[in-house]
Order: sequence, then C-alpha cells, then structure tokens
Amino acid sequence: MPPPASGGAATEDELIASISAICATAAPQKLVLGIGDDAAVWRPSRSNLSVITTDALVEDVHFTLAAMSPRDVGWRALAANLSDIAAMGARPVLATIALGVNARSDAGWIRELYEGMALLARRSGCALAGGDVTRSPAISIAITVVGEVRPSNLKRRSGARPGDVIALTAPLGASRAGLRLLTDRPDLAEEPQFAGVLRAFRTPEPQLGPGRWLGASRNVHALMDSSDGLSTDVARLCAASGVGATLDAIPVDVTARAVAERCGDDPEVYALDGGEDFALIAAIAAHAFGYLAGRYALRFGTPLLRIGRIEAERGLRRTNGNAIKPAGWDHLAG
Amino acid sequence: MPPPASGGAATEDELIASISAICATAAPQKLVLGIGDDAAVWRPSRSNLSVITTDALVEDVHFTLAAMSPRDVGWRALAANLSDIAAMGARPVLATIALGVNARSDAGWIRELYEGMALLARRSGCALAGGDVTRSPAISIAITVVGEVRPSNLKRRSGARPGDVIALTAPLGASRAGLRLLTDRPDLAEEPQFAGVLRAFRTPEPQLGPGRWLGASRNVHALMDSSDGLSTDVARLCAASGVGATLDAIPVDVTARAVAERCGDDPEVYALDGGEDFALIAAIAAHAFGYLAGRYALRFGTPLLRIGRIEAERGLRRTNGNAIKPAGWDHLAG
Repeated sequence: MPPPASGGAATEDELIASISAICATAAPQKLVLGIGDDAAVWRPSRSNLSVITTDALVEDVHFTLAAMSPRDVGWRALAANLSDIAAMGARPVLATIALGVNARSDAGWIRELYEGMALLARRSGCALAGGDVTRSPAISIAITVVGEVRPSNLKRRSGARPGDVIALTAPLGASRAGLRLLTDRPDLAEEPQFAGVLRAFRTPEPQLGPGRWLGASRNVHALMDSSDGLSTDVARLCAASGVGATLDAIPVDVTARAVAERCGDDPEVYALDGGEDFALIAAIAAHAFGYLAGRYALRFGTPLLRIGRIEAERGLRRTNGNAIKPAGWDHLAG
Repeated sequence: MPPPASGGAATEDELIASISAICATAAPQKLVLGIGDDAAVWRPSRSNLSVITTDALVEDVHFTLAAMSPRDVGWRALAANLSDIAAMGARPVLATIALGVNARSDAGWIRELYEGMALLARRSGCALAGGDVTRSPAISIAITVVGEVRPSNLKRRSGARPGDVIALTAPLGASRAGLRLLTDRPDLAEEPQFAGVLRAFRTPEPQLGPGRWLGASRNVHALMDSSDGLSTDVARLCAASGVGATLDAIPVDVTARAVAERCGDDPEVYALDGGEDFALIAAIAAHAFGYLAGRYALRFGTPLLRIGRIEAERGLRRTNGNAIKPAGWDHLAG
C-alpha cells in the first residue's frame, strides 16, 4: 500500500507499512524476520533463533491508576510482551524495561510495579535484565522481551493456507468485560461472581505453554496472539498469509457473557473488538485438527476451540456470508 | 545500599539498586550480566554473547521540538543506545522502537523520525526490527538495541584496577555547549564556527569502532560510555570496580571551550557535568597505555586521551587533592 501523505491522518496499519519501508533500508540482512509479525527474529548462531518484541503501556491510554495497582500495571505490561513471544512458538529469555515516571509515581510505586513484573517473570522463566528510568509527563512502561526458539518451531502469521482450521486457545472478551465493570459499573465490580473478568483485565495470563506446544507441531501453519480484538487480529493473519476467512463461532468467555447481559451489551462485541485477551489464534491443517485438539485438551485441560476456516477468498465473513469489519483497537485512532 | 523508604525521594542510583534487588528474583541464571552496567548480557549459544540495552527519550525532558528536527530526535535516540553497545565492546545487531506519539506528531513527523534512525542505523550496520506505536501525552521514544560480542571481548564497568590509566576516546562538553546555544543564545547558534557543537548535540556519533577496538584488547580492564557527565560516569565506573580515581586533565572540546568563553561559563563544567557526549571511558593497564594509544591514533586518526589514574582509595579527586563531586545528570532529579 502507498505510504500515507505527509501530515495526513494514518491508521496504525498504514503507518506501520510506511515505517517498515524505511526500516528495510537499514541492515535488513541481519534479520530473519522484520516488522509486521508479533516479533522480529534474528539468528545469533547456526542452531538458534532469537525473537524480540516491544510493547508500551501509557497511563490513561492503556491503564488508569484508578483501576489498577502498580503491581497489576507491571504484570499486564510484561504479559502483553510475553504473549507476543508465545505467538512465535518461542520461550522468553529476558526483558528490559524503559520506565517513564512522574510525580505521582514515587519510589514505592516504582518498586511495586517491578514486583508485579517480577512475579510474572518468575512464573515464566524470564529474567528482568534492567533498563532505564526517566522522568515523563505520563507514566509509561515500554518493555522489550527477547526469546528463543528452535528454527523448526518458529511460527509466523503468514503461513495460513486455504482449508486450514482457525483455532483459539481460550474464549475471548473477559478483559473487555473487566474494563467495562471498572469503568462504568463499580457496583457490579464488587460482585464475587465477576472476579474472573477483573483478573483477566488486570493480570492476564500469556499463553507461553500453549504457544510452545503449538510451535512444535508442523501442522500449525500460522500463529499469532489476539491482543487487538478477534476481528482485527484474524484480518491481520489473513492479510499476512494472502488469504481470507469465514468465522462460524465466536467463543465468548462465560463470565464476560454474564457481564454483557447485566450491562445490556452484545457479548460478541467484547470478543470481536475488545482485545487484550492474549489467547492464541492458530491456523491448523484440517486433517490434523481433531488429533491435535484431543492431545491439546489432555495436555492443558482446556479445549482448543475451532472458530472458523481459512479460505482463498480474501476478506473476513460469517457463515451466513455477512462481512465482519475489523473494528478492534487501533493504537492511533482518537 | 539499603532500598529507599517507600514514598521517599530516591536518587537514580538508589532506585536502580532497589530495582536490581527485585529483578534478581526472576530467572537471574539466564543472565551473564544483569542491571548496573551499560547493557545486560546473555549467552544464546556456547560461542556467542548477546548484549541488550534500553534507553528512552521524552519530549521536553530529553529534547524539545523547537531545538531539534524529527530526524535529529531519531538519530539521537538511537545514538544513545548504540553508545551503550559500544561501551560493552560489542557490535549492534538490531534495534526495536516503542514510540509514543501525540497530536503534534503526525504521520509525516513519525516518518522523518524513522528516517533519522535509519540513517544512523545504516552507518552502524544495525537493523531496525520494528516495535510499537501508541498514543501518549508527550512524545516518547524508547529504543532497545541488541548487540553481539565474542565472550573474550566483553568489557564491563567493574574491571578497573589501581594503577590503571583512565582514558577518553574524545574530548567532552560539545553536546552541553550545543544545548546552551540552542536554549539561551540563538544569536550565537547562527555563527558558523559553532556548528560543531550543534552537530554534537543533535547528531552525536556513537563510538562503535573505538568500542570494538578497545574491547579486543586484554589490557583494557573496564569500559563505559560518558553519557551522564564525566564526574558521574567515572564515579560509577569506580564504584562498580571498588576503586577510586584522581583526574589530572579534563579534556574539553575546542569549540565547546569557545562557546563557554562567549557565554561566560566554566568550560570544565560542560565536560564534568554536561553528559550526552558519548565518548568512551576506559581503564587501561598502565604498562600498555603508551603502546595502545599509539596504535589507537594510527587506527582512528584521533588521540586516546589520558585523563587520570585509578587508585585503591575510594572517591574522585583532582591532582591537588580536591574532591570532585558527581554533579551530572540524575534522570530522576527535579
């Protein structure tokens, strides 16, 4: 696609295309995989691939201090990056953190933020290798995670083929439901039956185990994480693979569905447009799906959810033929 | 040192000590070197070391759009990180960028920023491997650079020994002089004889060649970059090595000295407290200094500057015995 005109408004995807073109002028031969997937990849030695991903959280854009403790902010910031590592079929090695702090974040606040990151890092076998602390008008946390993967296990977004089953490692919408309660319905946020969606919003679990497991199967053709809403993310996987898709099931988290009912919302919108669920989306050879799904359920105790099919015809639609418009999170939209 | 009390004001060094203790609880065995040096180090395979460093620039803290074009901002942000790679004796492999943008930075602005980074990245053999663009109240650019180095060439801050010569790869103060002109003396900033210090401020040159060259010598015991002012940086090198130092020469950039004279400033203050010069500071075995300095001058066409001596007695002083107080840049000071 052409780069957006100078000064014009650009969507995130347009801007990234433009940035990619500029970045491709600088030493691209050092990279196995550059901008556009969940992580970039290089080869530090013959038998290893390293992957790297960066993601930033900004106060009042991605989190508010009203709804989250510093521990939660630290956990969530690291979780978003670990999810990108999971989406490559890789395991995390280390994280670095560039932290911008203001007057509202004193030394105690910063320590709690790091404790939240350390909690998740320990569970994930990821070292915290330091970084940079600087003053900033708004609190910002930019985390970079490096991971490693056997060359044969690396999964990209671009390998999906017509006929593949599209599968999800978890139902969606819980994170959006949690945010909805915290933002608009503090009365419901107190009810114990909704604790799960608050946890999903504050301390989401990156799917590192499922990511490595799926990465190890040659019948998994493409893998990415669902961080910007299912509609946006499946559209990106399809665009990277030069294919389209029909979705016949949108699995919504049970508690998220209950929240939607109490709030008068459409639960599918939570799943399609919510984002931040960090489930993995896989394109799997149709002939292998049944066998893989059985083994997956035995290994992880949860089902591998079939949600649709990859097709040669571009675009994203439902079984009845209605188009699905990507309406998830655009980080540059106002 | 004990961690600062919760809620209390902490200096940058105190806070980093506190953060290090928390980070050490998360998978430290994956790291060869953690927080506290110019970069963290891990071993992706038997024969390789990888190094990683993160540094963030924030609008109105580290740069102003009035004094710098987006190209300059991009160049400078990457230069600060490449300088940390140089300070490990390593070569850069790739960079990732987490960019926070606001309404003042449209798509054209962002492209120019990336073009500035790509310019320096090409010269440095560093790939730009992508990253993340998000909205933010102030423009912020957090860059992470990964480099690689032979295990025998890795240089830390902690290897300085009493008797070592302290050497600098370039005179200091030019960046501070450039900032002084741009901030307070726009009339002088127009004069062509001062162009060098504006260039030093806007597009500083990370010393990658000298860093790798010094890294390859076993007589170089410690290496770091001078980014926060000579007084602060030499004090950090000494603290990491458990030694002290006497400085007998503070080499000030010739143009910076001329700027200081026109502005009525003390030129040594530019060098001692200015920062952002990105010269390298090396502790070199005294018996080898003369030989190394001769070869260095032949190789790079500039002298390796002797500025003092490492001593067993802690603290930093001048030849006359007067203490030098670290008064450089503390990123958390108000």
